[in-house]
Amino acid sequence: MGMFVGWGRKARVAYGFNEVALVPGKVTVDPNEVDASWSIGNFKFRVPIIASAMDGVVDVKFAVAMSKLGGLGVLNLEGIQTRYDEPQEIIDRIVAATPEEATRIIQGLYTQPIKKELITKRIKEIKAKGGIAAVSSIPQNADEFGRLSKAAGADIFAVQSTVITTKYISRAVKALDLKKLVKNMKPIPVIAGNCVTYEVGLELMGTGIDGVLVGVGPGSACTTRSVLGVGVPQITATSDVAAARDFYYREKRKYVSVITDGGMTTSGDICKAFASGADAVMIGGALARAEEAPGKGFHWGMAMPNRDLPRGTRVKVGVIGGLKEILLGPSSFDDATQNLFGALRNCMGVCGAKNVQEMQLTEIIIAGSITSEGKAWQREQKVGMGK
Amino acid sequence: MGMFVGWGRKARVAYGFNEVALVPGKVTVDPNEVDASWSIGNFKFRVPIIASAMDGVVDVKFAVAMSKLGGLGVLNLEGIQTRYDEPQEIIDRIVAATPEEATRIIQGLYTQPIKKELITKRIKEIKAKGGIAAVSSIPQNADEFGRLSKAAGADIFAVQSTVITTKYISRAVKALDLKKLVKNMKPIPVIAGNCVTYEVGLELMGTGIDGVLVGVGPGSACTTRSVLGVGVPQITATSDVAAARDFYYREKRKYVSVITDGGMTTSGDICKAFASGADAVMIGGALARAEEAPGKGFHWGMAMPNRDLPRGTRVKVGVIGGLKEILLGPSSFDDATQNLFGALRNCMGVCGAKNVQEMQLTEIIIAGSITSEGKAWQREQKVGMGK
Amino acid sequence: MGMFVGWGRKARVAYGFNEVALVPGKVTVDPNEVDASWSIGNFKFRVPIIASAMDGVVDVKFAVAMSKLGGLGVLNLEGIQTRYDEPQEIIDRIVAATPEEATRIIQGLYTQPIKKELITKRIKEIKAKGGIAAVSSIPQNADEFGRLSKAAGADIFAVQSTVITTKYISRAVKALDLKKLVKNMKPIPVIAGNCVTYEVGLELMGTGIDGVLVGVGPGSACTTRSVLGVGVPQITATSDVAAARDFYYREKRKYVSVITDGGMTTSGDICKAFASGADAVMIGGALARAEEAPGKGFHWGMAMPNRDLPRGTRVKVGVIGGLKEILLGPSSFDDATQNLFGALRNCMGVCGAKNVQEMQLTEIIIAGSITSEGKAWQREQKVGMGK
Amino acid sequence: MGMFVGWGRKARVAYGFNEVALVPGKVTVDPNEVDASWSIGNFKFRVPIIASAMDGVVDVKFAVAMSKLGGLGVLNLEGIQTRYDEPQEIIDRIVAATPEEATRIIQGLYTQPIKKELITKRIKEIKAKGGIAAVSSIPQNADEFGRLSKAAGADIFAVQSTVITTKYISRAVKALDLKKLVKNMKPIPVIAGNCVTYEVGLELMGTGIDGVLVGVGPGSACTTRSVLGVGVPQITATSDVAAARDFYYREKRKYVSVITDGGMTTSGDICKAFASGADAVMIGGALARAEEAPGKGFHWGMAMPNRDLPRGTRVKVGVIGGLKEILLGPSSFDDATQNLFGALRNCMGVCGAKNVQEMQLTEIIIAGSITSEGKAWQREQKVGMGK
Repeated sequence: MGMFVGWGRKARVAYGFNEVALVPGKVTVDPNEVDASWSIGNFKFRVPIIASAMDGVVDVKFAVAMSKLGGLGVLNLEGIQTRYDEPQEIIDRIVAATPEEATRIIQGLYTQPIKKELITKRIKEIKAKGGIAAVSSIPQNADEFGRLSKAAGADIFAVQSTVITTKYISRAVKALDLKKLVKNMKPIPVIAGNCVTYEVGLELMGTGIDGVLVGVGPGSACTTRSVLGVGVPQITATSDVAAARDFYYREKRKYVSVITDGGMTTSGDICKAFASGADAVMIGGALARAEEAPGKGFHWGMAMPNRDLPRGTRVKVGVIGGLKEILLGPSSFDDATQNLFGALRNCMGVCGAKNVQEMQLTEIIIAGSITSEGKAWQREQKVGMGK
Repeated sequence: MGMFVGWGRKARVAYGFNEVALVPGKVTVDPNEVDASWSIGNFKFRVPIIASAMDGVVDVKFAVAMSKLGGLGVLNLEGIQTRYDEPQEIIDRIVAATPEEATRIIQGLYTQPIKKELITKRIKEIKAKGGIAAVSSIPQNADEFGRLSKAAGADIFAVQSTVITTKYISRAVKALDLKKLVKNMKPIPVIAGNCVTYEVGLELMGTGIDGVLVGVGPGSACTTRSVLGVGVPQITATSDVAAARDFYYREKRKYVSVITDGGMTTSGDICKAFASGADAVMIGGALARAEEAPGKGFHWGMAMPNRDLPRGTRVKVGVIGGLKEILLGPSSFDDATQNLFGALRNCMGVCGAKNVQEMQLTEIIIAGSITSEGKAWQREQKVGMGK
Repeated sequence: MGMFVGWGRKARVAYGFNEVALVPGKVTVDPNEVDASWSIGNFKFRVPIIASAMDGVVDVKFAVAMSKLGGLGVLNLEGIQTRYDEPQEIIDRIVAATPEEATRIIQGLYTQPIKKELITKRIKEIKAKGGIAAVSSIPQNADEFGRLSKAAGADIFAVQSTVITTKYISRAVKALDLKKLVKNMKPIPVIAGNCVTYEVGLELMGTGIDGVLVGVGPGSACTTRSVLGVGVPQITATSDVAAARDFYYREKRKYVSVITDGGMTTSGDICKAFASGADAVMIGGALARAEEAPGKGFHWGMAMPNRDLPRGTRVKVGVIGGLKEILLGPSSFDDATQNLFGALRNCMGVCGAKNVQEMQLTEIIIAGSITSEGKAWQREQKVGMGK
Repeated sequence: MGMFVGWGRKARVAYGFNEVALVPGKVTVDPNEVDASWSIGNFKFRVPIIASAMDGVVDVKFAVAMSKLGGLGVLNLEGIQTRYDEPQEIIDRIVAATPEEATRIIQGLYTQPIKKELITKRIKEIKAKGGIAAVSSIPQNADEFGRLSKAAGADIFAVQSTVITTKYISRAVKALDLKKLVKNMKPIPVIAGNCVTYEVGLELMGTGIDGVLVGVGPGSACTTRSVLGVGVPQITATSDVAAARDFYYREKRKYVSVITDGGMTTSGDICKAFASGADAVMIGGALARAEEAPGKGFHWGMAMPNRDLPRGTRVKVGVIGGLKEILLGPSSFDDATQNLFGALRNCMGVCGAKNVQEMQLTEIIIAGSITSEGKAWQREQKVGMGK
């Protein structure tokens, strides 16, 4: 399970979505009869797809729409929604920016302080419209925003950082005590991330969280890998954290959901995430293409918390259809960007998996990029960039 | 025979056409004296190349032409030929569609119900013109269409699904009993597919079929791998199913032909399919380029019409010459798209293989794409896209 | 730790920046509290980034600017600065050349003899402006130029050749005795390079040098690998020489700094160099993009010493901002070309490394290029080529 | 020394020029003092570079020029030079053809019968002008053309086929008895090829030949790999045949020269061929770029012997300078296409090899393509396509 990159320097080989493929099963199942649902706390979701806490993707309206379609959307408590009373106006300014000025404009707009009353307001708006209110904060604000969210009636609370660990060394900043947070938030389930290794996944599970986000460096709006050199491809990261989940479940009888977050651009990638051990996936760019998304075909990194070193960029993905079409189909494109849930169910059928737990055992092969075989002749139909 | 993609997740490495090459033999053979024929049931074919059951490739006229040249063409019983009295008119509408509207138009045209009398009619037309009548149906229709085909005088019957297994789990749909079908179709040989593994290949052989189609996700008009994440590169898939064939032959003394289906875009790819164990190959795009093909330089996948989740695309391949030129030469191009059979015989000569069984033992090496060495200077002559 | 490329020909697999990534730590550290400093002789540098001895990058003014920002710039004693009284005029001519004539013009300008008094003058200029005077010579001139540099008050002396060894076989030329040079230069620390292997690194350390430069064939202005076929990717080269450093330290209790030189184009690459064992990095192109660089957005190989076989080319990199912005930030781009030191400290924080020695133990994984996952949608903002 | 591509199908991994690099030596040597000469029969050549027997490269004048510069050029006895009294006129027609018509025009011009008196004439012309007369025939004509060549005073005789073996199975054609040919040609040294394996290399050596050509499928004007699927990358092929040479030498005390033929596009590739075991290299495209080449910047496959299945294409390489510049320098480009011999001597110096035998022991590493590290910024100077 390793190669040498130099004298005495062993290194594992890690794999991403493009480097693997799934093997059809010995048995096949009617796609209409597979069960792809997942649960966290007392919530059960028919569609195991979560919209990322990105300002170009999830606002109140989008969170409600995801809930109604059987999925979940997470609202970012560190961004436009809680800094501005009229967030769409602000988002429209970001959307209208030229590519050259986009980063600077985004940097400027995010310096406006967070208004705590907006945290309460947004959560209540989601609940009032019948949505499940999932919200996300960075570790530094998690104690306070968690308290406010709980008081406002939030259903699920997420703590998200580029990289999270249970031990943060700093003289200047008091580190988050995740165990205490989980206790304080009860009975609200807590999701924490992002992590990419067995060890950190296991330690995070030990704090009592209900879900763990997997993914450092893979997303299309994320430049962590080129800026910091840090990143683990998602198939390996998900497999490793899933192994920690299975070990933790055997030891403690608590099942912590593994949520693959980032890097999936096609329905095939989503299928591979489940095959490598995910219970649910969190996606940004693919949903930013919905007519309902506030970013109108653009999305950008979470909160860009670091003014000195931006690591998210505004990405144009285009608008390709309604959220329902993207999530549940029917699709009139063949480019793996619509009917994501239908594709997952079809895949489960072909792999003979009646539910997600069986899907997690599907055989994976290491296989060169699809381009080497499947694209000998240029496709004439290019819909990838949307309208 | 495996790597780890994550903790406890072992994965085989699978290989496709572009990742391997063939090694010349210790002995060489005069290409004019090699025998590349294959047999199924009582039929023997001088040319081991089968035209795919795709509506842009095979109609009555094309099936007859393939027969006369020593090969075989399979007519799709689920498509335009059996839904419309005048299929060419319909195909012309598909051909005339703009790239943007192609998928929607195809989806619409395939909603027209199948007329069962046209199954009988098409088979009789092929027979009347002196062709071998091979026809293909999906598993759901195989019992009924098989009966009709047998009555109409069909010679070979194929059952084709994206992925086939001997066990399909469904409460809503009655699964096909392949063993019973084979029995009912006697003495007509039955081909079934597609599969990509030793296990499924062996189980399919156990039903009494005479040929098995190998290939999930590799074709140029097929998007199974990007939509579902599912697919096994063809060299590995063919080797595995060929190993099952050899095992089955040792056990049961019945030789089931292995037909590599999809993903071959050059004559070199076809040669590699035989070296990895194929008895025959099934190709679509390369033959769609013949003047005789109904698609006039376009072709599209069988699973493309799926209304919820289209998994094929209309591909423009262009028309490059007559079927005879493409199949048997002579070639005036050097881009490996003409004289496919001549190239196979030359390859067998160079590899020292006097027949297909010897060719199946040719040494394969793993070698990077040809682009890394052979294309240092841009070719000035680009004929790949046809006229 | 090896594969066979042919009968009896074993070959190691070597890795470069694009083929690896770093794994986040079990612990994370506040980036404001990490210590990335390095030392050589009695000099300690807060910023472990050294500007290459290239004429398009370092002149007197630039060397002083690097010193003031906490880093180091090395002045080339074999180039424009010591051949011409008014070097900027000459550099401007190189900058103004058309791409077609650039190589010939550079070849012509470098035939002008070196004026020894300019060696003294440049060193004194750097010292007078408060900079640390580091200078670089080729082995043939090292004895003489070393003596002149010491007399002029130089602080650090580097001996640089495409490939350096302790044993040079020639009947015509007297080889440099590096041991004697080090002794003569005392107390001035000597840096020597370039090398890429454990063996040569260890032998060089045995001569008493204080720093070793690692890198043959990786730089953007270097064509050694395509012209000579020679080159070792930097992750492996750095790991190997770092292993020699650690062995030498255990044996002799002397710590020789390992300086990765060349091939780093992003801040992520710099982070990976440290993770593979570097104490400091030497970069050219990334700093040639500073407003303060004499090359005004162009740089070119060191001295192009070989008139018959040029192995450096003029490369246009563009000007993207002030040196301070590039080195220390803040960055308003997200393309990993600014705030190089900030990125390194952030990376160390994420990897849980409190100092460079801990950073050298960070887990490396072998991972496909970032393009396979992170760039599914085209970035709209392209700043890579500068203004 | 192998992987599995499928159940029971083992396959070696083979390597080409782009996949490896050379490691600098522990010792370095003055490039002016290395000896890169090679011998065959009683001929000794200072420059181990042979011009391919291609009609766009070698005519009488070019063969003489190669001899005078210390190398060797082989004249094709199957092409334009022996079919036409005024070959340059014919070549000019090929050069003037449009890309679309080139293959057909070449096919037509090569149907003209070979005039045997021209074999004699061309050899005498080369000798008269002071060149070494090396000529090449296909196996079918080797007995006859060998006799004619010997009578005309040829110095070296080559037998070349896409793939050569000592055993050719054919009822229609009498196979060449290479052993007998070698005997009849004495004292003229015979070179035979092409082959790519240890076994065939060893068998060919057993016939008494003096040189063996290595390379199937790698050249830029060769489409064997895409048409036939057959080919072995040159590093592995050369290593394997070189191992056969060393074994044969130990057994029989006869040293048979290994000549790597095809696939080298840069001086770095040539250096790697020697490091993998070559005694000399044969190149086409790189020399077709000389002003002296008859093809005026174009070249094409040897004799295109197969009218039904052309496997060579006309390639435009452009004219970049005089033969002397390309072979011996000086170079005013840095793109590894000029001063090929100077680059080899420099490489030998850097690798510490005093002669070719030492160079054959240079350490090879497996290293990703140079593009991944060395070409971060676009080169502004593109001379690759010549004038």
